[in-house]
Amino acid sequence: MMASAYYSEEIHGAHQYFELSDFVLDSGYTLRGAKLAYKTHGTLSAAKDNVILVPHWYSATSATMELWIGEGRTLDPSRYFIVVPGQFGGGFSSSPSNTPPPFNQGAFPPVSIGDDVRAQHRLLTEHLGIQELQLVTGLSMGGQQTYEWAVRYPSMVKRAAPFAANARTPAYNTLLVDVAETLLTSDPAWQNGFYDDSSDVALGLRRHALAFGLTGMCPAFYQEEAWRGAGFASLEDFKRGFLEAYFLPMDPNNLLCQSSKWRRADVSLHTNGDLGAALGRITARTIVGAISTDMFFPLDDCRQDAAMIPGAELRVIDTVWGHLAGFCVLQEDARAIDAILRDVLALPVL
Amino acid sequence: MMASAYYSEEIHGAHQYFELSDFVLDSGYTLRGAKLAYKTHGTLSAAKDNVILVPHWYSATSATMELWIGEGRTLDPSRYFIVVPGQFGGGFSSSPSNTPPPFNQGAFPPVSIGDDVRAQHRLLTEHLGIQELQLVTGLSMGGQQTYEWAVRYPSMVKRAAPFAANARTPAYNTLLVDVAETLLTSDPAWQNGFYDDSSDVALGLRRHALAFGLTGMCPAFYQEEAWRGAGFASLEDFKRGFLEAYFLPMDPNNLLCQSSKWRRADVSLHTNGDLGAALGRITARTIVGAISTDMFFPLDDCRQDAAMIPGAELRVIDTVWGHLAGFCVLQEDARAIDAILRDVLALPVL
Repeated sequence: MMASAYYSEEIHGAHQYFELSDFVLDSGYTLRGAKLAYKTHGTLSAAKDNVILVPHWYSATSATMELWIGEGRTLDPSRYFIVVPGQFGGGFSSSPSNTPPPFNQGAFPPVSIGDDVRAQHRLLTEHLGIQELQLVTGLSMGGQQTYEWAVRYPSMVKRAAPFAANARTPAYNTLLVDVAETLLTSDPAWQNGFYDDSSDVALGLRRHALAFGLTGMCPAFYQEEAWRGAGFASLEDFKRGFLEAYFLPMDPNNLLCQSSKWRRADVSLHTNGDLGAALGRITARTIVGAISTDMFFPLDDCRQDAAMIPGAELRVIDTVWGHLAGFCVLQEDARAIDAILRDVLALPVL
Repeated sequence: MMASAYYSEEIHGAHQYFELSDFVLDSGYTLRGAKLAYKTHGTLSAAKDNVILVPHWYSATSATMELWIGEGRTLDPSRYFIVVPGQFGGGFSSSPSNTPPPFNQGAFPPVSIGDDVRAQHRLLTEHLGIQELQLVTGLSMGGQQTYEWAVRYPSMVKRAAPFAANARTPAYNTLLVDVAETLLTSDPAWQNGFYDDSSDVALGLRRHALAFGLTGMCPAFYQEEAWRGAGFASLEDFKRGFLEAYFLPMDPNNLLCQSSKWRRADVSLHTNGDLGAALGRITARTIVGAISTDMFFPLDDCRQDAAMIPGAELRVIDTVWGHLAGFCVLQEDARAIDAILRDVLALPVL
């Protein structure tokens, strides 16, 4: 499948697009004709006081977060106006896969989590006229964006629920990014990002999936053969049918654009490297959602973040699905996420 | 450096060699002119009742285990006759790097942990006339060999101390082998194992080191910057100066020969897949040494093995060095290992 076919509305549903025009990135490059794709669910209230922002995780699109949204869920479109922004490199927003020369493919400029959040802020304020977010929430890179929102725009973020993420990517976690990126780019067909078609890099995409098999779940996941619950008949079946199948249709440069942001996520860039000072800026009512078996952003690191946020609470999701619990393969993982979101939304704000 | 230069007595000291002649492997191949390299420390007592066997871990040689041996250590050559056998694929014993055609390089036949242990058994019984081992101990693949010894030759093994290993490689752990092998063989110069010189595969060897950075230690190791204790000035310095430097001079086929054994280690092959029955055969007084932060063979898995061995005790080494605590970079890791070995040696036997 061509990357352009994967990043299509046929597969991911209708998107809206906000023209950022000439967007100056933190890296100093000007992304000309930049655009931010997004999806919305529900109806914006007249007072514009029912908005929830749900940035997405690595490798996802705005459509992916529909795993968390729906009638009967906490993120209920009948009640809230839910904005699911894309991110640079996500395949719908400006990305290596859809940007013309000179910024095409392997020459796409470096982007930061801060760039994503600034673009989203412009979408909300300039285009949608929104000044107040009842909640910002997301998992993994979505959680990194949640932290960036809460630190950068504290007066706008009433509540925050970062899941399975850290406010500053820990050194250990960058080793995972090393492995994932190295596996992906090890394919000779990668050619420094100037392949003809993403499917040429199928070997790299399959190899890259191995990193997520190793640390995406946890040892108990494999011992209990929990992949059976996702409908697979053997470990090999799961590796090919779930891990490889998930990444195979994606664009390598898009993934690398995202992983570069993931690696460098750091709210303390706002406070000269003082993480406590950065998190101390947060005025949002915050619940930090950690996953008991998370090998990407382990519980201990999440606990440390929570301890630096004024009044924040730590909540732990107990599951063998590890970091990938966000996919809600298990009903109980969805219920645990919904419960945390329900509780954070119930917290009173000024 | 050429592989032949690395696997040399100039670097690893004098070895002895036991001629196995035509050795039929579990895989059905006959390794003609097979040899088992080994080192010994201390003096065999007249009663031949002071023998300790210390098989080595992945990527090591018999010389490596001198990290555990010495005057004032529990494994004291003034008291014990310590035999440190090599393993097939270790570079001194029959290995891809030193075997002539047709079994050279990428055509070296599949070998098992059982093959290694059978060869070691022949060395001890046929060549050294030893019928009794006061202790078999080793870490990681050395621990896998310890389990194999204790299950296969229970009457010969008086005491056993497998460290940081499992009696049957858990599924999760095979994902780590997947990642390590894939990184190593991703180098186009690997050429299915038929490179001219191991240094041609330097890129693969460097990539392969990343897997050991990710799960060799643990998240706290990086958060605490514990690599400073090993004499490195930055994370990048540690990655290049420790992880890459360690693997870079090695032979890729030798590593792959070993990892293939590691992946398939399973004492329950003796009991039609019944792990409890296999471990139930152990008559050795056993202490299972687990490492609190081990991401290769996690504590929970070690605990489960210990519970299936009659009368075995579980002991936990608390360190941020994770699986790589066996290298004894920290004095306290060496002391913790020595304490377990001292205690197991003090256990009375019939």
